[in-house]
Amino acid sequence: MSTDTKTNLSRRHFLKATSITTATAGLALSGFASAKTESSCTSLPDKWDETYDVVVVGSGFAGLSAAIEAKNAKSSVVVLEKMPVPGGNSTINGGGMAVVGSDIQKANGVTDSVDAMLADMYKAGLGLNYPKQARMVAEQSNDAFEWCRDYLGVKFKEKLAQFGGHSIPRTHTTYNQSGSGIVHPMLEKAKELGIPLKKKVFVKRLISNKEGRIVGLEVITKFKPGKENSTATHFIKANKGVVMASGGFATDVVYRSSQDPRLTEELATTNHMGATSECLKEMIRVGANPVQLSWIQLGPWASPDEKGFGLAPIFAAYSAFTHGVMVNPETSERFVDELADRKVRADAIIKTGNVAVAICDAKGVKASMHVMPKLLDRKVVHTFDTIQALAAHYNMSAKTLEAQIQRYNSYVLAKNDPEFNKPFSMNQQPIVEAPFYAVRLWPKAHHTMGGVEIDTEARVINIATRETIPGLFACGESTGGTHGACRLGTVAIPDCIVFGRIAGKNVAKA
Amino acid sequence: MSTDTKTNLSRRHFLKATSITTATAGLALSGFASAKTESSCTSLPDKWDETYDVVVVGSGFAGLSAAIEAKNAKSSVVVLEKMPVPGGNSTINGGGMAVVGSDIQKANGVTDSVDAMLADMYKAGLGLNYPKQARMVAEQSNDAFEWCRDYLGVKFKEKLAQFGGHSIPRTHTTYNQSGSGIVHPMLEKAKELGIPLKKKVFVKRLISNKEGRIVGLEVITKFKPGKENSTATHFIKANKGVVMASGGFATDVVYRSSQDPRLTEELATTNHMGATSECLKEMIRVGANPVQLSWIQLGPWASPDEKGFGLAPIFAAYSAFTHGVMVNPETSERFVDELADRKVRADAIIKTGNVAVAICDAKGVKASMHVMPKLLDRKVVHTFDTIQALAAHYNMSAKTLEAQIQRYNSYVLAKNDPEFNKPFSMNQQPIVEAPFYAVRLWPKAHHTMGGVEIDTEARVINIATRETIPGLFACGESTGGTHGACRLGTVAIPDCIVFGRIAGKNVAKA
Repeated sequence: MSTDTKTNLSRRHFLKATSITTATAGLALSGFASAKTESSCTSLPDKWDETYDVVVVGSGFAGLSAAIEAKNAKSSVVVLEKMPVPGGNSTINGGGMAVVGSDIQKANGVTDSVDAMLADMYKAGLGLNYPKQARMVAEQSNDAFEWCRDYLGVKFKEKLAQFGGHSIPRTHTTYNQSGSGIVHPMLEKAKELGIPLKKKVFVKRLISNKEGRIVGLEVITKFKPGKENSTATHFIKANKGVVMASGGFATDVVYRSSQDPRLTEELATTNHMGATSECLKEMIRVGANPVQLSWIQLGPWASPDEKGFGLAPIFAAYSAFTHGVMVNPETSERFVDELADRKVRADAIIKTGNVAVAICDAKGVKASMHVMPKLLDRKVVHTFDTIQALAAHYNMSAKTLEAQIQRYNSYVLAKNDPEFNKPFSMNQQPIVEAPFYAVRLWPKAHHTMGGVEIDTEARVINIATRETIPGLFACGESTGGTHGACRLGTVAIPDCIVFGRIAGKNVAKA
Repeated sequence: MSTDTKTNLSRRHFLKATSITTATAGLALSGFASAKTESSCTSLPDKWDETYDVVVVGSGFAGLSAAIEAKNAKSSVVVLEKMPVPGGNSTINGGGMAVVGSDIQKANGVTDSVDAMLADMYKAGLGLNYPKQARMVAEQSNDAFEWCRDYLGVKFKEKLAQFGGHSIPRTHTTYNQSGSGIVHPMLEKAKELGIPLKKKVFVKRLISNKEGRIVGLEVITKFKPGKENSTATHFIKANKGVVMASGGFATDVVYRSSQDPRLTEELATTNHMGATSECLKEMIRVGANPVQLSWIQLGPWASPDEKGFGLAPIFAAYSAFTHGVMVNPETSERFVDELADRKVRADAIIKTGNVAVAICDAKGVKASMHVMPKLLDRKVVHTFDTIQALAAHYNMSAKTLEAQIQRYNSYVLAKNDPEFNKPFSMNQQPIVEAPFYAVRLWPKAHHTMGGVEIDTEARVINIATRETIPGLFACGESTGGTHGACRLGTVAIPDCIVFGRIAGKNVAKA
């Protein structure tokens, strides 16, 4: 039974090497269970504790964008955040934003187009993308970028990056190479506009009136994990509507493995511990259509040698993948285009069955220099004076690795990779200058492409009637469709900001 | 923008050639809308019109298996069927049943194992299969087969077939090469046991009591498409429980394209017009967890030259794919292992952008001889005295096609296909004997792998609490998980019968 053996092996390999960093995932197994509602009956509270025009659930890119736009459209707004700190996953990522047609692209001599970005999104998304939404993200990405920079005061680097799956350099990175470089200016703007941000507020229930309109929420205040069924609840009225910018569920082991049984607790995640499914389930309960939930992305640039998202992804995406190589330590050879989309690369690493090693030289490391002290200190990235020493550290054949690097260097010089067709549009240089830097990589659950179905105005669609659910809007990772089978790197930020702003403008009109 | 052009092309190609047979899909656009329920509130009727221990929704393989087992466990049972005729998709297929370890396999000298079948299922399912459910289907397939043959009196052929994606011949086919060869004996048994079958009964609502137990249904009797919101409703009480064997939604263009936007109305389906989503949505409304809904299978053996499932799949699966070749008429060459799984083959056809041509010779056609008169009469399959004449008919190069067939014949004789690794375990013969037979093939939507989550006892899982929903059982295509990303051909029948019987036995105990 060779196929049998192979299948079992693949499954074992899939989970191998991931047991090192299960702490975060483990927490989610017990934390953030969905609240049990006694029946699916609508029931209005006797009295509302607070009233706003607009209630936004979630304080990441999407939620804060919606809140700012709704407030600017003269609505009273509150932002609810379940965690003790704002920002969710929006603060723990590399701060890369894919943008088409910016002045920075022009200054860098890059010619890009909406159709080129869409083609990249469709290729990674296997054509499962919702055509209108995907196009809107690409078309409005520069508007979102300029809103961040010119209205919010976000500082971006002047150099572009080329992320996996993009045919062209179009990733604009925040000055501090973190999503916090956008979240913090958003929080400041929200404060300046007088939008209250209430932390540790857990959504227990969306409340509909008799006509099926969402009119408010039942929440638990002073929330801590484990208190999901607390009876000390609080009622918040939303005169115009509720915007669910409640994120994805990559940390929720029980729920994610009901959609993809391979993603058990043995697989680590890049997400914060609050990335669970209770808000998604609550939207489904009131009639939302859950779409494409079984497409869950694994990040190929995550290291098993640190917890969560960590800092390795910044080194890998900006330095090693772009300006270096990724090899299978068993063969000391490359096995995939280091700039393929995330699904292609994650699947390729898993297929080797080995924790990959990504390498760059002293020139390549420059693009991630500011995270290097921490990565070296934490022994996630190591530095070596010679390729021989690097090979020895990872139990590789120095001879094969040197030959591999020489071969790769010849492709760089020829600007043509006949083996894996890596795009050399970032003026890549050969790997020659010591010291050499290396990191171990194994995929972690990163982004849930699926979510509730929305229309182009960020209104949530009712599964049975195909009409919109009055008073209910959603945006960001809590929605499905835009990315199809696989979200391209750095397209989450434009998606969240474009649809967050749309949701905020539309709920204010509701 | 070469990638851009490519993406647009792929999308165009994806839909090309399918506009010929949209009649069935077109109907579903208007018919079988979900009933609109005024609120999600539970409300018991003032009086029940009928009462049974067990109500089974759906009269295909799964529903009839459940009804027979529940009745044999001393419950009163009714079967509800929305259509004017019973059986649904279970009557329109080739009647193939994948079985491990049968006496027919032994008589044919085939050594098989549960692990070998599981390995095939996982390979096609891309590892997304629910491990316990997948194993149960393989383990209990022979029990299901013997129950059909020895208890129901189903007649099977003594020859095995090898279907795409199976590493071993394990497909047992009904005598009339149709699923009706199983459905009719099931209907007779149900009649003999005194189980009423009520046709034209449309499920409007599942009714829960205050404790969240499913206690019955609101239905529309004398149903016709377009009457989904009829107020002339009727209430049926289920003392022990309801078994939802309500099938998949491959005909439901609006709903399927919310999960996979490529599957627009331009894409035809093999399914009957009743394969829509309203029962799935109703289960979700009462708390079921919808899993893996975006995996929708396209049948690679469907012909654009006939409507619906038709008869071409029988010729393709039993004759042309096993004992012949499939070529791209643009190149006159093979492009995929004709016995790969359905997803691999359908994707490969779509990628060529051309309606494929599948060919076998006078010896190969024997395995599908009884459908040949109709296929020839309807001009779906054509016969030719020479390969040259065949090539001319399909505008192919006779020279290249002859060279292709000679090359393929040499692989058959060597029992080794170095190009596509086709498994030659069915004693394949070279393509030499006139007349030659050929059919045009383009994929049609065939099976929805996703559905509600059940446990190993066919009880429906509540999305929020992870407990079972009391009184609610599901089986067959209405459930998700067993097949993962792609159901192997002829594994639907054991799935439906194994889990239908489990549901019937368990609901009787409830």
